[in-house]
Amino acid sequence: MSKTSERRKKQREELLTVAESMIAAKGLAGLKTRDLAQRIGVANGAVYNLVEDVDELVLRVGSRTLARLDAAVTAVEAAGDASPVDKLSRIALAYCDFAAENTGLWRALFEHRMQPGKDVPEWSIAEQKELFQHIHGPLVALFPKRSAVELDVLARSLFSAVHGIVALGLEQKFVAVPLDVLRREIARIVRAVVNGIVLEEKAEA
Amino acid sequence: MSKTSERRKKQREELLTVAESMIAAKGLAGLKTRDLAQRIGVANGAVYNLVEDVDELVLRVGSRTLARLDAAVTAVEAAGDASPVDKLSRIALAYCDFAAENTGLWRALFEHRMQPGKDVPEWSIAEQKELFQHIHGPLVALFPKRSAVELDVLARSLFSAVHGIVALGLEQKFVAVPLDVLRREIARIVRAVVNGIVLEEKAEA
Repeated sequence: MSKTSERRKKQREELLTVAESMIAAKGLAGLKTRDLAQRIGVANGAVYNLVEDVDELVLRVGSRTLARLDAAVTAVEAAGDASPVDKLSRIALAYCDFAAENTGLWRALFEHRMQPGKDVPEWSIAEQKELFQHIHGPLVALFPKRSAVELDVLARSLFSAVHGIVALGLEQKFVAVPLDVLRREIARIVRAVVNGIVLEEKAEA
Repeated sequence: MSKTSERRKKQREELLTVAESMIAAKGLAGLKTRDLAQRIGVANGAVYNLVEDVDELVLRVGSRTLARLDAAVTAVEAAGDASPVDKLSRIALAYCDFAAENTGLWRALFEHRMQPGKDVPEWSIAEQKELFQHIHGPLVALFPKRSAVELDVLARSLFSAVHGIVALGLEQKFVAVPLDVLRREIARIVRAVVNGIVLEEKAEA
């Protein structure tokens, strides 16, 4: 690698680290190009030599957030003796805890919208899909007869339901609940959804 | 009422109507005081003679949105012969349809945050709580032995879960699903949660 591209790479990492700390502190609205440029010691215009635009900057920071979330979820999966329902429950609680500890960065994942006319790039969509892999394992164990497409839809519904409980719970919006109640509710709803679907399958059989 | 206060009231209604159409079209970010003032024909400063500040403006528009959502949910409740689970399902679907048809205004209910140091006023919290009344009826019928507090928590979890599925589904974020699949999933998850909890109660008894 040439010295120039090494330097560029280092600056880019620095840019992402600064952007990450800004989003963590003040959300997406706290991300200002001028402050970014100043903090990494480049001219305003030079920021967009390092990343294409604000969208890429936010998505690259999101990439780091997703990687840490993935690690947090992987850590709770390690307990291999849990039943599939317990695994889903642990994953959901790990998600809740991660969101509680990284609220600004976690919110940014969902609040960011691409500039008009631009699509989310494939690499970012692929990263988001990766997350669902964690839910897939336990669901396959629970519902071995279901097709991959059916399990996809179910994984997404389950994730979205847990996400909704976490999101409204943490925002203290419409739903003001302390974290321990929130965690208990999440475990309960995950269990209820799974048992409810198992019951339905038996009734259909 | 004096002519001045009548005129003021009319202007205030006009302000809310214009703000509503701006939020509907472009979200909270589309709300600009200068444009508002121009559209209702007053000086920029005069806007905040009609409402206290941007927070009040957004909350008053939210008030209208909540009233329309309430009416939409009330309309599907009218079918008196449905079982409690069917009622919950219909309410959830009415919520989904409302969100799909009023995406900008519905999003604003959740994205709006008060300026630092300010709390959401009591009148607005009371309006938000009103919505949960719809879910309470069927839940009392399903779980007559549970305390009001327990049902409160359950109502909120159920609402949040459905909200999450609707929110991620409509945003086409993480979860890209067509509306008919989304509606089917919502009905299924509501049914599963309720049946799962009924099952748990039986196991505990």
